[in-house]
Order: sequence, then structure tokens, then C-alpha cells
Amino acid sequence: MLKKLLDATSVAIIGASKNPTKRGYQAIKTLQEEGYEGDIFPVNPKEDVILGLKCHESVSAIPQSVDLALITTPARTIPSLLKECGEKGIAGAVIIAGGFRELGEHGQELENEMLVSAKKYGVRLIGPNTSGMINMKSNMNLVGIKNAPKGNIALLCQSGNMALTLITEAMIRKHEGFTYYVGVGNESDIKFHEYLDYFSNDPATKSILMYVEGMSNGREFLQQAYQTTTKKPIILLKSGRSDSGKKSAGSHTGSLAGMSEVAKAAFERAGIIVIENSDELFPVAETLSSQPPIKNNSVAILADGGGHATIAADLLSDYGIKLPNLTSQTQKKLKEILPNAASVVNPVDVAGGTDSDPSIFADCARILLKDPNVGGLLIVGLFGGYGIRFDKSLTFAEEEAAHRLGKMVKTKNKPIVMHSLYSSYNSHPIQLLGYYDIPVNDSLDISCKCIAALCEYGDTLTSYQAKTNFLFNWGAKAKKSGVDIINKARSENRRVLLEHEAKQLIKMHGAPVCGDTVAESEEQAVKMANSINGKVVLKIVSPDILHKSDAGGVKVDLETEEDVRSAYQKIIENAKNYNPDADIRGVLVSPMVTSGLEVIIGTKIDDLFGPVIMYGLGGIMVEIMKDVTFWVLPISERSARKMIEKTRSSVILDGVRGQPGYDKKALKKLLLICSELIESYPEIEEMDLNPVILNHQGVNVVDARIILKK
Amino acid sequence: MLKKLLDATSVAIIGASKNPTKRGYQAIKTLQEEGYEGDIFPVNPKEDVILGLKCHESVSAIPQSVDLALITTPARTIPSLLKECGEKGIAGAVIIAGGFRELGEHGQELENEMLVSAKKYGVRLIGPNTSGMINMKSNMNLVGIKNAPKGNIALLCQSGNMALTLITEAMIRKHEGFTYYVGVGNESDIKFHEYLDYFSNDPATKSILMYVEGMSNGREFLQQAYQTTTKKPIILLKSGRSDSGKKSAGSHTGSLAGMSEVAKAAFERAGIIVIENSDELFPVAETLSSQPPIKNNSVAILADGGGHATIAADLLSDYGIKLPNLTSQTQKKLKEILPNAASVVNPVDVAGGTDSDPSIFADCARILLKDPNVGGLLIVGLFGGYGIRFDKSLTFAEEEAAHRLGKMVKTKNKPIVMHSLYSSYNSHPIQLLGYYDIPVNDSLDISCKCIAALCEYGDTLTSYQAKTNFLFNWGAKAKKSGVDIINKARSENRRVLLEHEAKQLIKMHGAPVCGDTVAESEEQAVKMANSINGKVVLKIVSPDILHKSDAGGVKVDLETEEDVRSAYQKIIENAKNYNPDADIRGVLVSPMVTSGLEVIIGTKIDDLFGPVIMYGLGGIMVEIMKDVTFWVLPISERSARKMIEKTRSSVILDGVRGQPGYDKKALKKLLLICSELIESYPEIEEMDLNPVILNHQGVNVVDARIILKK
Repeated sequence: MLKKLLDATSVAIIGASKNPTKRGYQAIKTLQEEGYEGDIFPVNPKEDVILGLKCHESVSAIPQSVDLALITTPARTIPSLLKECGEKGIAGAVIIAGGFRELGEHGQELENEMLVSAKKYGVRLIGPNTSGMINMKSNMNLVGIKNAPKGNIALLCQSGNMALTLITEAMIRKHEGFTYYVGVGNESDIKFHEYLDYFSNDPATKSILMYVEGMSNGREFLQQAYQTTTKKPIILLKSGRSDSGKKSAGSHTGSLAGMSEVAKAAFERAGIIVIENSDELFPVAETLSSQPPIKNNSVAILADGGGHATIAADLLSDYGIKLPNLTSQTQKKLKEILPNAASVVNPVDVAGGTDSDPSIFADCARILLKDPNVGGLLIVGLFGGYGIRFDKSLTFAEEEAAHRLGKMVKTKNKPIVMHSLYSSYNSHPIQLLGYYDIPVNDSLDISCKCIAALCEYGDTLTSYQAKTNFLFNWGAKAKKSGVDIINKARSENRRVLLEHEAKQLIKMHGAPVCGDTVAESEEQAVKMANSINGKVVLKIVSPDILHKSDAGGVKVDLETEEDVRSAYQKIIENAKNYNPDADIRGVLVSPMVTSGLEVIIGTKIDDLFGPVIMYGLGGIMVEIMKDVTFWVLPISERSARKMIEKTRSSVILDGVRGQPGYDKKALKKLLLICSELIESYPEIEEMDLNPVILNHQGVNVVDARIILKK
Repeated sequence: MLKKLLDATSVAIIGASKNPTKRGYQAIKTLQEEGYEGDIFPVNPKEDVILGLKCHESVSAIPQSVDLALITTPARTIPSLLKECGEKGIAGAVIIAGGFRELGEHGQELENEMLVSAKKYGVRLIGPNTSGMINMKSNMNLVGIKNAPKGNIALLCQSGNMALTLITEAMIRKHEGFTYYVGVGNESDIKFHEYLDYFSNDPATKSILMYVEGMSNGREFLQQAYQTTTKKPIILLKSGRSDSGKKSAGSHTGSLAGMSEVAKAAFERAGIIVIENSDELFPVAETLSSQPPIKNNSVAILADGGGHATIAADLLSDYGIKLPNLTSQTQKKLKEILPNAASVVNPVDVAGGTDSDPSIFADCARILLKDPNVGGLLIVGLFGGYGIRFDKSLTFAEEEAAHRLGKMVKTKNKPIVMHSLYSSYNSHPIQLLGYYDIPVNDSLDISCKCIAALCEYGDTLTSYQAKTNFLFNWGAKAKKSGVDIINKARSENRRVLLEHEAKQLIKMHGAPVCGDTVAESEEQAVKMANSINGKVVLKIVSPDILHKSDAGGVKVDLETEEDVRSAYQKIIENAKNYNPDADIRGVLVSPMVTSGLEVIIGTKIDDLFGPVIMYGLGGIMVEIMKDVTFWVLPISERSARKMIEKTRSSVILDGVRGQPGYDKKALKKLLLICSELIESYPEIEEMDLNPVILNHQGVNVVDARIILKK
């Protein structure tokens, strides 16, 4: 229950101080200056009064009950202080101090000790290594940043600098502010998904803005996010995607950063708006907080002059947004009010029609938002600046237009995003747009990104599927004989399953494999080869020989019985030469697959999200073009289809250059089998099916490798 | 000679007016208010005095010589006014009026008439359809935009809105301004490359900033740009890359927008910094105007806190910029001055070392710029805001640091780019950085783009090759027999060369082709087939059958004499059925190529740049992955190599999965032959060599198509 922490009605400041350079002084001063509505209890055994408040010897000495403690003392003091807090009945503590796991092993020990204490005494923790938190409603400001603007965005941030940046940006923009700010810090106790759950249910919060460096419970986060985004949008920037960035993020919060493609795919699948350009973070959150989403991916541009319209059209097109044709009715109505030189196709250019009366923007907007093809409106150019640039009296016309535009959004339930060159002048018409919650940007690029986010969120809402599950039912569908295979490997101290073991395991769950039986003698090999139609392949089976080809343990293209015999002998001989101590269990006999399309399926444990699956066309496509998709497991049939469709090379599966298509249904089924397999055997760390041969009918796993967890 | 226009010492205002809403009034008023140093001559037969200046009946009535005319009257009046201007000896005219080619055929006629008059009377034209021009040095402001800041950027712009945007941005940023602004308009007479030439030789101009929608002499522009960029950087945004954008650009200036990949490749090859995000345009120009380029693509980041450093490292890595390891000497020195918690690897994090004394930034910067691995420095965070955020007295330390940072750039000749959250507060330390020409951005993303542009320009300067030529020596290497082939097609009213003609043409210039001889009878076909080793292909030869396969005119895989005979008969029969009137000239006999790598080479005439060449791997790579490169012709050997290397699939040519590499030398030679061919025969509009088969040794053109110009 985070309410007592995030909406605390009383705060103890442990480490309160009379020294103005100390956090324990600044914290009290900020609470007083910002007008915190609750009680403040300074705690310091050496002082009597601080900033006019009675100072207590310890939290137990406070005569009333206390919701939250802000602890400003060093790391080593925390475990014993948490005991005191718990005994006092304090629900939670904000731990400012750094010096925990981000400092390595020793710090990790201290962090563990702190967590044990917190759990034992029932105190939930924000941080450690955090800049603090703010509740804007009660003015509970436990951070140094003053005058943060109130509004309806909840801010979850893993860097004090980024919080300062975003809050400062809100102050400068003057249109929108925050409900809460939480510096998540090391996320030792309370996790991202718990905050998310809380904000999800807070009626004052309209959108959730996140800056993430690392995450310890990525899977629970996705599950919570998927539910939250049906109610309100989440806008997220994940840093640390480059090696250099990771180095920096690593030393910052001590979290391991996840692989970027996996993270992006996972976040987007959970309906999160992923931002890669930090300039866009706040404006997008502001827009999504205030404007209705666009559900048909179609937008009209309204401009005064060609340059801005041209650039905006380019950018929207880069985002895959449609600029729909306007109905003839719309065009006719626009013609009636615009000068001859104006363009009444989308983008609409009023061509100087505004110089004498900028309220024409509102007239055009009304007509455009009525058009059924138009899902939202982007106005670009000089609005709010006609009074500045031309004649002061034009300001009145701009104001009138602002009133009308503001009301239009409410009645039509379609969004307006405004670009204005004069945005930073904050003229009265621009302030009015802010009053009506219409976002105004001086950047065309960011305005277009805001439109794109409205389209993306509209799509998220319409494509939501209640069934989607990001959590595992570990082991539920495991088979006894599958567990036996894994146990056998474990009993032999092996982490790598032998090829036939891996193949047997996936076959058990319904995957078509080729060559999963071992010949233990030459005669057996010949017999097996004879039962196979066409050429065969022989591969050594030994737990001591993992790189079979290097050991001369693979022979292909074997046609006759003689071929098979001589290959068998040669393989055994090679293996013995390669490793005289090798435990040789025989030879795998499989049909030689010569036609079909090569694909690759792999699974691994992602640092951030746990089990993920990868799919791509084999050979050049994966090695050179990196044309693969990642998805977090488990996957649904719909996800399997989307994974296949998301590779650029997926058209090849439909058949190109007159060739027939490949069996996508069988491929989809194989992806689902892999998902089931990973969910069944939590012991599996990595699985590689490479190659898988896809045919016009059916699919076949030709080689498989499974590695168990340590 | 543009000097008399761009540096005019006297201006006649044709269409001068007493009406304050008219351009002919505003122009005079602006010149007076901005303090134009030259003479102003209002011209209007109906007035005596305007704004205190004597008004002249016509330009001929002006008693002194005049350099430039600003013509504010409508389109139809221009041709006769140019006659008057020419007779008066006026060197040039700025034509504000629209109503020319952007209005279609009728407008084009008027534009032609205007050009004829301009040429006849020796008057050069800026525009038409332009917002005007400004010379900041003499305060000759022929545009409505007032108070534009002076500086060292020349601005060439094809949209009044974009000019207003960029000038307003400069006003807000307060650090840098302009030498000239020219609204290029329809570019009817004076072309982009002429302005470029002029700015290239203007000592006050340090960089050239361009917004382009279309261009009429792309080729000359590239040639001029290639020379200009050795002296000063060109920063360019080309809009209209999307279909929607093109529609808008098309109706704006009446220019056809070029294909975006071609344009980007061409501009970059000429050493131009191509910008795709309009927010970056001005900051990048500002940075390149003031900072030395980075020549080793290696940058250090200096931060106060992790968040900004992490994001910056991500972004620089996206741009392919290295964050080099710091020498042990550098790390040792940093350790001496920084707190224990600081990171002394790149990115360097002072970790609060600045809270008490922000001048530590200058100490660190000095150490970092001394490091031989570091080519430039990006400082991110709160500089200029410590006095605002913490204690006012810190401002003095920031000022001291700003002085030292400013001098450091000059002495070390390595650039500093600054990101500051407090940039828009324009505190005194930030003003000081401006005084020292160190760019400050409130956007991290834009700061990183500025660093990337410094790296790109450094690379341009180091990789410059004096020989590169963008202009053609049309026909110089044409062969008589080649011209004969083209003439024959022309005499038969054909625009498409027959396959064997196309192959003969390229063979003449040294390309290895297969199957360029025609069998005119079954016997001849058999004879030819017998002389070929292996299977053969037969194809119909008829100027009336362009789609040979559709007509049943292709037979492949022919092994025996019988095969060849029956194929010959069938092909002739099919052709006659397909088109009874077809002029059948025989059958092409060629060897059947079965092994090797398929590549595609094509040439076309680009709207913007004329002849361009395309190269890519055939099949899936070009059809699905769009993995092709474009280059403007003619190409050098180096360009041919770079074209091949720039495709993602180029590693395949080196041999993958243990296969031997392909003959890149032969491929390069073929690209050069194509270049020579297009330069030799200006009649060629399009050429397609598809497929070309690349072998481990040698290359072979298997099919060729050449289309002549209309």
C-alpha cells in the first residue's frame, strides 16, 4: 500500500540539521516554503529546534503517528534506522544516500542488509540513491527542485538530472505540470510496476512519464503497463542502449541495461509510447495528457505558407501517418472562406489569408475537424505571433480563435497540436491555448512527434486484447520425459543438452525435427540410413565434443551404404583423435535436407525482461542484414504472426518471383511450441534452432541446441 | 557579378507607395529604420515624396546611377520594367511578385518573357516569388523581418516562413546571426550555385545555411558546393522528400522535388552537411561557424551526474562517433582534482564536484582537450545554472570557467559544444560563452547533432580530393559505331535499343557481355549454340516486342541441337501470334549463366542532378531489402568502390560462410564503364543492366536495356 508513502500526511526528517548546506536542513526548508499540508517532524538527538520546529531525539520520541520518513544520513546508518521506523509504525522511508550496489560487492551486501531490515520491520523503501520524491497535491516536496508546476503528469525518473531537466522544461513551457515525481533510484524495494499501479489508479494523473536506466522486474512491469495503458498513456525513454551509454548507466544506478531491440519491442508490445529523443519526452507527455487520441492514423495539416507545411508533411510521412484526401464538401467550404491562392487540399495553406485576420485558422479548423477522413489537426506556422509580427490589434483576433479552437477539441473529440514560431514569446493567445490544454511547440519536429504519439496511442487502445499475458505459468505444461532429459544432463554435470536430447525435448511438444535418434554401432547407423529416403548426414554424439565440425564429427551427402559405413568409422576415429577421453555415445543419423528456406529461432534470458524469443530468416538475412524480431515470451498466436510479419524479409515467405509461398502456419506453430517449451522448463537458459528449414508444406528443425541455467 | 546586387550601394523601390499596408511603403520604411547605408530612390509616377524621400517618375528619372531595383509591382508589369532598369544600367532586380511558373503553363510563359527581357537588357534577377533579401553589413533589408541579428552565417532560403523561423531562432538564441539572407524564390535567373560562389568568397561568411525545396541546376550546384566546402561548411535541409511533402513543395515554388535517397547521396558527396530535422538547422550552422572541426571522430563527454551523460553517450554512438579511452595520464590528472565518487573514464562524471565550484568544469576540460585521443568535447548538464539553482555566488566561478573555456578552444584548436539545462535563462556565464563563440543548447539531442556535424565536416576536409568532377564532358569518349547504333534506333523511331544493340554498345566500351549476336535463321542459331560451351538461351529480337517473356519469346535451358531447333521455331511462332505485324529480326543466342552472384546496375536522369547511377545486389536484396546505393555520375574509381561498400550486403562480395570472394575489381570497372557510357552518349535516358552476374573471377552482363531520351 503506497498511499501512506506517496500521499503521506506526516513526514519525519531523519538527519535534520541546522546547517543550511545540509540536505537535512534544505528538506525542511523546502517543505515549509512549498507549503506542505502535513506535519513535519525533524529528528536529531543533538538539536532542540530546527527552523522553528521542535526536534525529536529519535522517531520513537515523536508524540504522534508518522506516515513517512525522509532519511538523509549515510548508507551504513540505514538498517538500524529502519528498525526504529518500523517499531514506530512508519509505513515507508525515502533513502537519499548512495553507496549501495552501485559501488559493487560491498555495497550490495549493505543493500541486502537494508532490505532484510525493511522487510522485517515492515517499512517500504523509495530509493536508495534517489533525489527524493514530490507529491504536488499536498506540496510534499522532498527534493531540492522548487516551484515545480502542478498538473496531471506523474513522473517516474531514474536520474536526478533528468528529473530536473523535465521539471525545468515544464516551468519554461508553462502549460502543464505534475501530480507526483518519484526518483526511483536503485529500485531496491518498491519497483517500477508498483508505482505504475498506484499512478494508474490516481484520478488526477492523466499520463505517466518515465526515464529508465535499468529495471529489476521487467516482466511484472510489462504486465502492469499493459493494463495501465488501457486507462492512461505511458511515455518512456530507456537510456543505455549503446555500449558507451551502458557504461555510463552502469556506474550510475548499478543496474544492467537490457539490449535495446528487445527492450523497445517489449515496451511497445505493452502499449508504451517509447521515446528515443529526450527533447520529445515532455511535449509528448503533455500532449497525451490533454488531447484525445487519433484512432484512424489520419491527420490534416493547416498552414500559413508553404515551408512549414512541406516539412511537416515530410515528417508525418516518415512516421507512417496518412494525410487523407479531404472530402469535396470540405474543399468546397474551405474555398468559400480562403483566398484564391490558397491550397484546399491537405496540407491546407491559407496563403496569407491570416495576415489580415488570423481567426481564419479557427474557421478552417472547424471545417477540417468535421471531415470524417480527418482524425486530428496539426496547425503550423505563426499563430500567436500575428499580433507581434504585424499589427498589435491582430492579437484580439488570435485570442478569439484560441477560444474557439480550445472548445472545438472538446466538442469534436479530435485533437489539435499547434506549432508556433512564437511559442516562446508566450503571448496572450498562446497562454489561452494553454488554458484550453492545447499543446504549443516551437519545434515542428516535436509537434509532428506529438501527433505521431496520439496516433500510436489511438492504435494501442483499439488493438488492445484482454487475454495478453506477460507472466509465466512456469512448468505447467512440462512433460515427465522432458524433465527426465534435463535431469539426466544435470546428473552428468552438463549444461548443454546433446543434439538428440534437445530435439527429443522439442519433439515431445509437437515440433517436427529431423534426426533425433542415435546409432550406437555401425550396423545400427546403416540400418537407420536405409530407412531414410535420400541422402543422410552423420554427426558425432558426445557430451565432450560441442563443436562437432571442428572435431571432424560431421559427414554430409552420404548416399550409399558404403558411404555411411566409411563415414561412421571416420567420425569415431576423428572424435577419438580430437579428444581421447571423450565419452562417445554414438552417431546421430538424419536425413540431408537440401531444399526449403532457412530460418532461425532462438530464445534467451534478457537481463531486463527474462525469457525472450528471436526469429529471422537464416543465412545472409540474419548475419548481414540483421533482419530479426524479438518478442518477450510467452507469445500468443497473434504475436507469432506479428513477429513473422515484422521482419522486412517476410514477403519472401509469401513467395517472390513467381515461387509458391512457404508454410507460415507451421512456422507460427513452431514459435508457439518454443514459447510453451520455455514456459515448461524454467531450467532452460538459451535455445537455438538453427537452421530450421521451412518448406512449402511443413517445417523441420534440422539442428537444435539447448543450454541450461547455471 | 553579384556584388552590385548583394552589396548594392543604392536601391530603387519600384512600386513605392504612401499606403502603409503596401510592400512599396514597408520596404522604404524598413530600410530607413534599419539604417541602410546606401541611397534609396522611391519610384512611382503618381507621388512626389514618400517617407521624406523624393519620388521619381521612373528609374530613368533618377539623377544618379543605381545598383539594384526592388520591384514590388505585379507579375505582368515585370518584363517592361526590366527594360527600363537595363537602360538605366541597373545591375539587378529583386522580384517579389508571385504568379509565374508556380501557377502552371500561363505563368511559365510570363516567366520566360521576363527572363528574355532580363537577358536582353543585362539585368540579373533575384526571385521571382521571393520574400526578398538582406545584406546585414550595410543594413540593406529588403524583407519585412526586422532586427535580424548580425553574425557570420549566410542564409539561402526557398521559403519565407523558414527564413522567418531561422532568423527568429537566432534572435532568441542571441549568440550568432547572419551576413546575408537571400530568398531564392523560383530561382529563374540567378541559381543556387551562383549565390554559393559569392558567399564562398565573402570573408565575413563563415558558414552557409540552406533550405531547399527544388533546384534547377543541381549539377552545377554540386560542383560549386564541392569547392566551397573546402573553405567553409554548407548546412542544408532539403524538404519535399515524401509524396505529401512533394505535393506541398510543388505548389509552393513550382519546382519538381528530387528523389530523396539520390539527393542525400549527392549532397553528402559534395561535402554538404545534410540536416533532416529542422530544429537542428540553425544550431548546427552556429556550431560550424564558430568551432574547429573534429578530425578523428572521437569525443569526450564531461557531465555532472549520470542521466545526461548516458543519453549523450547513446546519441553519439548512434551517430557512429567514438568515445575514446582516456590516456592513463589523463585519468590520473582527473583523479587528482575530482571527488572519489567521480568517473574518470569517458564519459567523465564530476559527480557533484561542481556543486561547490563549477569552475572544475574548466579544469577537467583543460585536461581532456590535452588528451591526444580526444578530438572535441561535449559538456552536458547544468553549466550556467549553478548560480541560479544553488547559490548566487557560484555565478562568479561559472564566469571564470567560461572565460577559460572560451580561450581553450582557440589555443587547443579543438571544439567545445555545451549543453545546459539553463541555456534559455541566458545567465551571464552563458552570455560569456556566447561572447567566446561556444555554442550552448538546451537540447541534448541537438548538442550531439552539433558534435556529429563537426565530425562530419572534419572528415569532409580530410577526405577531399581535388580531382573530383561533377560536370560532364559530354560525348568526349563516344565511339563512331556507338553513335551509329543510336542513330539507327532514332531512324527507326525507336527509343528502346534492342538487347543486342545495348550489349554491343557497352561491349564497345569494355564491358563483358554474354549473347550480343543475332541468329537470323534456325541454322545460324544452331551454329551459334554449338559454338557455346554448355546450355544456351534463345530470345526473340524484335523492336515491336519489348516484353519478350510475355510474348513467349524466351526459351532457356537448351542443351541439344534438337532443343535449339524446336525453341527457335516455337519462339518465331509465338512472336507471330503475339503480334502478327511484328518486325522480327531473328533470335539472340546466349550462354545460360547458372552460377555467380546477381547484381543490378542502373542509370537514370534525376530531376535535380541529371544522370545518376544505382548499384545493388540483385534478387531479394534489391526487391525487398532496398539495399542499393545511388551516386551522381560521372564516378571515379574511389566512388565506385564506395558505392559497393555502402550497401549493407557488400560483405557478401568478400565471401561469407567460407565461400571465396567475388571479383570486386571487375565490378568496379563495370561501374566506371557505365559512367563513361552515359557521359559519351547524352542521348541515353535510362540504362538497366539486370542481371549482371558477378563471379569469383570476372563479371558478365546477362541482360541490358537502354532507353533514349524523347
